[in-house]
Amino acid sequence: MSKNLTSRAEDYSKWYNELVVKADLAESSAVRGCMVIKPYGYAIWEKMQAELDRMFKETGHQNAYFPLFVPKSLFEAEEKNAEGFAKECAVVTHYRLQNDPDNEGKLRVDPEAKLEEELVVRPTSEAIIWSTYKGWIQSYRDLPILINQWANVVRWEMRTRLFLRTAEFLWQEGHTAHATKDEAIIEAELMNNVYAEFAENFMAMPVIKGVKTESERFAGAVETYCIEALMQDGKALQAGTSHFLGQNFAKAFDVKFTNNEGKLDHVWATSWGVSTRLMGALIMTHSDDKGLVLPPNLAPFQVVIVPIYRNDEQFEAVSEKAESILKELKVLGVSCKFDKRTTHRPGAKFAQHELQGVPLRIAIGPKDLENNTVELARRDTLTKSIVEIKDISVTIKNLLIQIQEELFTKALDFRNEHVTEVDNFDDFKKVLKTKTGFISAFWDGSSETEQKIKELTKATIRCIPMNNKMEEGKCVYSGQKATQRVLFAKAY
Amino acid sequence: MSKNLTSRAEDYSKWYNELVVKADLAESSAVRGCMVIKPYGYAIWEKMQAELDRMFKETGHQNAYFPLFVPKSLFEAEEKNAEGFAKECAVVTHYRLQNDPDNEGKLRVDPEAKLEEELVVRPTSEAIIWSTYKGWIQSYRDLPILINQWANVVRWEMRTRLFLRTAEFLWQEGHTAHATKDEAIIEAELMNNVYAEFAENFMAMPVIKGVKTESERFAGAVETYCIEALMQDGKALQAGTSHFLGQNFAKAFDVKFTNNEGKLDHVWATSWGVSTRLMGALIMTHSDDKGLVLPPNLAPFQVVIVPIYRNDEQFEAVSEKAESILKELKVLGVSCKFDKRTTHRPGAKFAQHELQGVPLRIAIGPKDLENNTVELARRDTLTKSIVEIKDISVTIKNLLIQIQEELFTKALDFRNEHVTEVDNFDDFKKVLKTKTGFISAFWDGSSETEQKIKELTKATIRCIPMNNKMEEGKCVYSGQKATQRVLFAKAY
Repeated sequence: MSKNLTSRAEDYSKWYNELVVKADLAESSAVRGCMVIKPYGYAIWEKMQAELDRMFKETGHQNAYFPLFVPKSLFEAEEKNAEGFAKECAVVTHYRLQNDPDNEGKLRVDPEAKLEEELVVRPTSEAIIWSTYKGWIQSYRDLPILINQWANVVRWEMRTRLFLRTAEFLWQEGHTAHATKDEAIIEAELMNNVYAEFAENFMAMPVIKGVKTESERFAGAVETYCIEALMQDGKALQAGTSHFLGQNFAKAFDVKFTNNEGKLDHVWATSWGVSTRLMGALIMTHSDDKGLVLPPNLAPFQVVIVPIYRNDEQFEAVSEKAESILKELKVLGVSCKFDKRTTHRPGAKFAQHELQGVPLRIAIGPKDLENNTVELARRDTLTKSIVEIKDISVTIKNLLIQIQEELFTKALDFRNEHVTEVDNFDDFKKVLKTKTGFISAFWDGSSETEQKIKELTKATIRCIPMNNKMEEGKCVYSGQKATQRVLFAKAY
Repeated sequence: MSKNLTSRAEDYSKWYNELVVKADLAESSAVRGCMVIKPYGYAIWEKMQAELDRMFKETGHQNAYFPLFVPKSLFEAEEKNAEGFAKECAVVTHYRLQNDPDNEGKLRVDPEAKLEEELVVRPTSEAIIWSTYKGWIQSYRDLPILINQWANVVRWEMRTRLFLRTAEFLWQEGHTAHATKDEAIIEAELMNNVYAEFAENFMAMPVIKGVKTESERFAGAVETYCIEALMQDGKALQAGTSHFLGQNFAKAFDVKFTNNEGKLDHVWATSWGVSTRLMGALIMTHSDDKGLVLPPNLAPFQVVIVPIYRNDEQFEAVSEKAESILKELKVLGVSCKFDKRTTHRPGAKFAQHELQGVPLRIAIGPKDLENNTVELARRDTLTKSIVEIKDISVTIKNLLIQIQEELFTKALDFRNEHVTEVDNFDDFKKVLKTKTGFISAFWDGSSETEQKIKELTKATIRCIPMNNKMEEGKCVYSGQKATQRVLFAKAY
């Protein structure tokens, strides 16, 4: 199986596409740009969901559900937001099919069933949610509203890639309403921090927290906070965003409240989201030419046991040992699968679990039973060792913690090696072509310069890091006065 | 608050609509027929999801995700299914909006961005899933496929009601593929049993398991298993369905496999689903004129503590006691909320928690501290008692189990009292008008009779109960020979 995987050096993009399909994570569907998330891929997404959901609830948020459709008149209310998404909206215009009189057995759209007002399939839910919040908010006593939604959204992208950019994707979107500007800003920063914590502690993926420049901001936001990760090919990936929306949506939907001084004011807003795109980020942070590498905290099962045997008697003896290890691991909260399929040989099983990134593999054969050992193989380092079966569950539990940490450290080292300070545009271009990664360079703060650099190099400003050092310098492109370095990179 | 609730006797339908909104479960949205599920309502749905998901996984199913859209050509492939849903399909015809040249600041559908093939917003996913399974199945070794999906679906209903019938709703849909007919039938029956267990043990809602008549079957199914519940107003509610689909979808999408004898055969299928409609069933099974009544197994919080105090000192003393009870309950796995809001008086809190159906309410005041007691109020029976604070957590834990059981028993008694054997059509009509509920009557087995009874009385055959007694009799309408009694009722 893994022999067929294109190597990363040969063609990173092809390697990614093949890996997603071969590891049974997802595949393209019959619908242009939409994917099918297969059970193994979905199980990883479920682990992400469970942890994020826990973190959201711990920070005081509740889940709710708002409609899939946004009437066009609501969609267009916040002009910048509407303008930003108009070009990629799937639009429902009819509500009925009928038999096609010219084509027996076929259906056609019933021309009589045209909607009076078209419905946009939500590309994001600010509009429908703020039109709802209007009915919920009268006084400061009704605030804050701290709501999250797990949902599907549709953005009609022209060029799509599994997980990274699909017409339909799954995500969560938080939408909060506050009495003061400060409270809303604190919320937006808090959720960006929650995303960073999740990325680092669960995905083992180091991220840089920052804010977007004006041109890269979410349509309708006053400030967009983000976490930026670095993929193995030196391209950046925006892994999560959290927006301070000011009073833009409250004004568009006329959402006012009486503050504690009895005065009317517009409500302050945030929104924040991460999506199945994180699956792409996870894959491109850790995986190798043999396939997927999963951090133990997100692996559908952390350990797999493969029995080695020649006859039924051996199988039974090995199985007994395997079952006892399973039990022990369960007690310690380690998820383990005993792969006792008779349809596959051990070699095929090894290859599959390697391709699918199971963090630890145990092989047990008759010799192991004699010696009271098992063979333990780490997926991340591809190292094998013979270990005593005594205390095996504790050994594994500790090893999983170690793997989780080492994956993070490895990714962090790679990222840190790929942040390059550059002081002139020739070096900028050279680093971008050869070393790749983030380029830390002075920028004069103008959208023109940003745009020009993008045209010339395809690199964009990924973010202005949080708590950035203010210093005097000259813009790497224009030579104009600059006050800080920002991070450039080519990006997904 | 609850004073404003219309009584059930006055107008059951109005009572229901008011209750859903006033208890903060859901509300209508700006989109025709679509609802907003509010946090309190969504928290109940999450509890349902968690338990069902656990039961699905325990029976060997995995989750996955398939596209929201179904290309028209796939949708129409299974003719009966297509015919059944064609009249209620939302259809995406365009993928872009543009500025309206005649209307500044407004958008319009871009006529240039018409899709070559229209996309149906899934009303159910057999078509998209079976077109996918075609690529997954070659041999009997690829079977069974046991997949479930949590998703939103859209059926453009003309008359909608919160939870019971909405244009968009949330549900789960299982879609399984099997090598043999028997295995598929066993699967369909198994999942109907899972639904029955969930309904009875978690919703405390008794159900009758049965199969649908041909005219009431899911479009495209060979057999539809169902669970039918009885609401307080004597109307039946179909709470879940599980379909044996035969080889219909495999044939429509040309899904064949090589069986273990090396012969090609079409794959056998099932699908099964429950939806947010269960929320409506839950409400109409237990609630009363004061508001919602929730079974402890599905309550977002099972206990609420309301502090009674006149000054800060009293508040602190009461709070200390409350916090210690909270801790004890947490250890026992009981979810409890301490309602220490300073914006509401105890009376208002009592009314709110009553309206929202919190199973148990504890009130603690200074007198209770003196006496080492608390006031404990049951939502289901509306009874209050003064109980010793000693062992309060164990008392509560046991009481919650008791409440869960008593709610079920009460609903079961009501249901059993409302199954009436009837042997002539005059009695049939009379019972339907006066006593209501299920009518057990002989039916000649013909669709004509079924249709005629429906026209005359609005009652439909809810199901032919599983393991029904076969006996000789005369059809309650036609007088023709009949072999068994079936259950008729008016239904939601």
